[in-house]
Amino acid sequence: MIIVVRADAEERDIKRLLNLIEKSGLQVNYSKGLDNLILGLIGDTRTLDVSSIESHEIVKKVLRVQEPYKKANRLFHPDNTVIDVNKNLIGGSNFGVIAGPCSVESEEQIISIARDVKKSGAKFLRGGAFKPRTSPYSFQGLGLDGLNLLKIARKETGLPIVSEIMSTEMIQAFNDDVDIIQVGARNMQNFILLRELGKLKKPILLKRGLSATIEELLMSAEYIMKEGNENVILCERGIRTFENMTRNTLDLSAIPILKKKSHLPVIVDPSHATGLWWLVEPMAKASIAAGADGLIIEVHNSPEDALCDGQQSLKPTVFDDLMYKLRSYAQIEGKVI
Amino acid sequence: MIIVVRADAEERDIKRLLNLIEKSGLQVNYSKGLDNLILGLIGDTRTLDVSSIESHEIVKKVLRVQEPYKKANRLFHPDNTVIDVNKNLIGGSNFGVIAGPCSVESEEQIISIARDVKKSGAKFLRGGAFKPRTSPYSFQGLGLDGLNLLKIARKETGLPIVSEIMSTEMIQAFNDDVDIIQVGARNMQNFILLRELGKLKKPILLKRGLSATIEELLMSAEYIMKEGNENVILCERGIRTFENMTRNTLDLSAIPILKKKSHLPVIVDPSHATGLWWLVEPMAKASIAAGADGLIIEVHNSPEDALCDGQQSLKPTVFDDLMYKLRSYAQIEGKVI
Amino acid sequence: MIIVVRADAEERDIKRLLNLIEKSGLQVNYSKGLDNLILGLIGDTRTLDVSSIESHEIVKKVLRVQEPYKKANRLFHPDNTVIDVNKNLIGGSNFGVIAGPCSVESEEQIISIARDVKKSGAKFLRGGAFKPRTSPYSFQGLGLDGLNLLKIARKETGLPIVSEIMSTEMIQAFNDDVDIIQVGARNMQNFILLRELGKLKKPILLKRGLSATIEELLMSAEYIMKEGNENVILCERGIRTFENMTRNTLDLSAIPILKKKSHLPVIVDPSHATGLWWLVEPMAKASIAAGADGLIIEVHNSPEDALCDGQQSLKPTVFDDLMYKLRSYAQIEGKVI
Amino acid sequence: MIIVVRADAEERDIKRLLNLIEKSGLQVNYSKGLDNLILGLIGDTRTLDVSSIESHEIVKKVLRVQEPYKKANRLFHPDNTVIDVNKNLIGGSNFGVIAGPCSVESEEQIISIARDVKKSGAKFLRGGAFKPRTSPYSFQGLGLDGLNLLKIARKETGLPIVSEIMSTEMIQAFNDDVDIIQVGARNMQNFILLRELGKLKKPILLKRGLSATIEELLMSAEYIMKEGNENVILCERGIRTFENMTRNTLDLSAIPILKKKSHLPVIVDPSHATGLWWLVEPMAKASIAAGADGLIIEVHNSPEDALCDGQQSLKPTVFDDLMYKLRSYAQIEGKVI
Repeated sequence: MIIVVRADAEERDIKRLLNLIEKSGLQVNYSKGLDNLILGLIGDTRTLDVSSIESHEIVKKVLRVQEPYKKANRLFHPDNTVIDVNKNLIGGSNFGVIAGPCSVESEEQIISIARDVKKSGAKFLRGGAFKPRTSPYSFQGLGLDGLNLLKIARKETGLPIVSEIMSTEMIQAFNDDVDIIQVGARNMQNFILLRELGKLKKPILLKRGLSATIEELLMSAEYIMKEGNENVILCERGIRTFENMTRNTLDLSAIPILKKKSHLPVIVDPSHATGLWWLVEPMAKASIAAGADGLIIEVHNSPEDALCDGQQSLKPTVFDDLMYKLRSYAQIEGKVI
Repeated sequence: MIIVVRADAEERDIKRLLNLIEKSGLQVNYSKGLDNLILGLIGDTRTLDVSSIESHEIVKKVLRVQEPYKKANRLFHPDNTVIDVNKNLIGGSNFGVIAGPCSVESEEQIISIARDVKKSGAKFLRGGAFKPRTSPYSFQGLGLDGLNLLKIARKETGLPIVSEIMSTEMIQAFNDDVDIIQVGARNMQNFILLRELGKLKKPILLKRGLSATIEELLMSAEYIMKEGNENVILCERGIRTFENMTRNTLDLSAIPILKKKSHLPVIVDPSHATGLWWLVEPMAKASIAAGADGLIIEVHNSPEDALCDGQQSLKPTVFDDLMYKLRSYAQIEGKVI
Repeated sequence: MIIVVRADAEERDIKRLLNLIEKSGLQVNYSKGLDNLILGLIGDTRTLDVSSIESHEIVKKVLRVQEPYKKANRLFHPDNTVIDVNKNLIGGSNFGVIAGPCSVESEEQIISIARDVKKSGAKFLRGGAFKPRTSPYSFQGLGLDGLNLLKIARKETGLPIVSEIMSTEMIQAFNDDVDIIQVGARNMQNFILLRELGKLKKPILLKRGLSATIEELLMSAEYIMKEGNENVILCERGIRTFENMTRNTLDLSAIPILKKKSHLPVIVDPSHATGLWWLVEPMAKASIAAGADGLIIEVHNSPEDALCDGQQSLKPTVFDDLMYKLRSYAQIEGKVI
Repeated sequence: MIIVVRADAEERDIKRLLNLIEKSGLQVNYSKGLDNLILGLIGDTRTLDVSSIESHEIVKKVLRVQEPYKKANRLFHPDNTVIDVNKNLIGGSNFGVIAGPCSVESEEQIISIARDVKKSGAKFLRGGAFKPRTSPYSFQGLGLDGLNLLKIARKETGLPIVSEIMSTEMIQAFNDDVDIIQVGARNMQNFILLRELGKLKKPILLKRGLSATIEELLMSAEYIMKEGNENVILCERGIRTFENMTRNTLDLSAIPILKKKSHLPVIVDPSHATGLWWLVEPMAKASIAAGADGLIIEVHNSPEDALCDGQQSLKPTVFDDLMYKLRSYAQIEGKVI
């Protein structure tokens, strides 16, 4: 960290600042110029509160040089992390596709879709049991019954299941029943939930918040990893911007940045990002071309009757066609779907 | 709700759509033009999933006319809601100021600040015990010890206390100890938490999410109110934009909009919105001029030593000066501080 | 257009509204429900001012059904537009790459780069002569001398040249010297400039503004096309968001949307979108996968000495490698580079 | 400017970087730490291209300390600039209100409105003659006829006139006819236009671009001032965000920031910022409370018949009432309306 101090700062104010820095166990390198005194801090500055430093009136600017995340940082873990659920892999040369409906609606529905997406090459089945909805009057999911239906579909097809957790009370049930626990965009900074999930061994699929920066996403992964669970999958799912033709704006440049900064696998959710089924194919192809390790895609056997997000769901035949096309792209990128 | 259907839609596709609508217990008003068939839906459309309707290929556009919130809607509750905590009021002609440090750090600190802000005219004491921090390596608050210190400060000064809850496990403790329970921006759409808070009688201070629309804020209030707790205070605290001179962009136009759409009191947090102490005064004055019912302001006896957010905290003398100035504005607006 | 009027509106207020509508030569279809009176407007509503309609107090909502652009609309021009500059094509099955430095700096520089990018397969040479810079103290380009150097490079290599125009005074010079006239993001809504460019026959490369919606981009194309020049190439170059790791956020979903709504070719500028050279390759590949018709890429023989935008420029060898990789993607998409 | 270089950088790469810096006439202050070599640049770094420095692979980070604007900087011009048009003042203790219709429509209309707003206390008359409209099919203003009608209204009322220029060709006419030349949001970075306006003596009202940062607004002012014209009025008029209840999000924190960084007067346009007439009053009051030097407000004698922006225009009686209320606020702030 570099701190730029006014050249005319008084000795006692500088001492007060140095005091704060040294209390954090850091050393300081001085450099006095005409206009500024520059302090270069040596040591682990992650616990230092930038705002407190900036509140010293003699401080003009503060520049972080070190990245604030450690476990998620590729610097300290150069190899790609590969997530393995009973030989279903995501990461490295393994392109993993997760598919299924927005929400589990009935046994017939979830089994039918699970069979279809498996046949097309999906490695994981997704399905919402607890649904975070903007309105309290909207369908909120089948709850634990939904989890049970997912388990039946897993038994029928062998596909590991992915479902979204909404609160710490559900951790036991999700740890027992689900193969990958999803943290939704709205909970990306639910730090208590992240901390508890960090105590499990289960892979965690962590979605980027609607207005979270790339660095904040990595800091949320760090919350989980700090507790011991390093099985984190990052997911870009669109950010909120002024553009209103799409539900969100898919930020595909986040993929190569996350891959450079971190060793964790990165997948993309083109369904929620765009909110429109006909944009899923081009955005799925673009994701793999940009370096993604996988996709999570909404598939419904009858989108027009879906209890949520019908407009962004693919029909099974459209999904099948998409998977066929994705294989050509995977081949160029040296990946296996 | 109005649904615009292609004029060339086939009879059986229209029937399928009508089927979905009628299952929701709604009636339909037809109007056939040259290019479009327009369906006007009559009844309560709040539970209808717009996305499922849009997934019908014959549908060109859907327009919501009715507002999706009911309990929070001024239409059904024309009078202003006034929050009353032992005669400390927020709402109507009562301008309520909540003040205190970002986080409770010690008994000495919180009592000293509590006395200062009370003397200056604050009606409530704020203080973080559980702190949502971007980094797992940052100070996370004193936890339950923090709540205890707040209680001591309340006993010393008589000021009711406001503190942020981060998870459902804490509900019992907060219901016992705290006078107004704050839901932070990152938890605005933690729907499980909102639902549980709806079962209490305690006032809830609900902060707008970093990228939440005004309508989404009202929908989150609706989650709480639907369960029976109508003591909700809305709080504008800045939204995330491209501008980087301030931590967030304070959206003051949200105040008159919220006041028009809803009967709930609306307060403003200029400290978190701007992230810079010298912007707190002009933004506090602007808030009252724009119609706010109160403010929540960070005050610290020694910002340079604060464990968090020092840069945005006012010193007690600066806060005192601000309160003095705010009284002139309150007078013009016919409000009592 | 559909106008929702309060059911309790008075007759004379409705008449006043109808008067305004009928003055525009439109017919009206009525539908009276319990809560609303719905007016469906028949005819060309493009000239109607929505804001004036909304200013009638009896109006609750207005919904546009018709798209506000005509010449740029695929509805009235189903076939893809192909831009042809001496057999160098962009559009349809022709993937066109434009490459070159941010700004023309010297004869040696521009000829050297032109030869390199031609060898790698670029079809057009880009180079800035007039540079829009945020600071008046930054290098502003060589001006007309820059255009002359571009002409020399064209003579040497046969590559048609693309350069940015900044003001109407330059139209004559650009029409004489340049093969494709670029309108930069900051001038996307310089309507006087667009109108004048509409009177030429020269192809216009129109960049999306930093915070322009997709519809606004199409409306700016419409300004040019309305005057008679239908040779417009649309360019996605990133939009401004809160994310600060990239200069802008590249909105690749704009490609399939623009291709669906319009017949005009769509290219992408990954250099300006990201601001970082190592993001150009993944974003270029993602662009072609998402359906783009071409790319515009910054290439500099010595980025470290570039007078502008060095950080986002590719070295010629890196560009060569990129072009090699893009060919595999083009093949899958059935396109020729 | 501070440049952080990798500690393991090779001598010749460092020399190459130093070479670039020294060519710009700057001196360098070294400081070698464990992880980094820190270069502190001494001298005027405004002309240095940050991107070229960042393109050196040995550079980790670059931090600007100096502000990039000079003429607009309060540091070099501590006193408030006051704009004076025939004793009609904006700036310092003079709160100046500019009012009038979105566009001039007829002699009767403009004279009637001019008389009304003058009676209510407006110091300047606004009126659009050339209108930048998103659609080429919308009303584009009366052009030079509009300027003539404004001159008639000025003669009738004595109010100086403010109108928007759209292109350099119009400079002569505007310099002859108009008292304050307005540069609209879409032209804030039309640098050629800014440069030409810098050669006049006429006050320039410079509006913030839809997605311009505060620093970019100041840099655009710098373009004008660098040429010699220091009569610039800055105008906050809302920025583009995801919130869709208002046309734009009014960023009132920009006022105290601009006032701190610059000596130029700052006014606010609540009409364009919100797009809704009933938000103009609370936002106008908030603006004055936040420290604004003036307002520009749309007033129309018959908003329902306005040829543009009817929804955001105040009726003269509403404007009169607003001016009455603003006087109380002005008094508190020690300003004269």
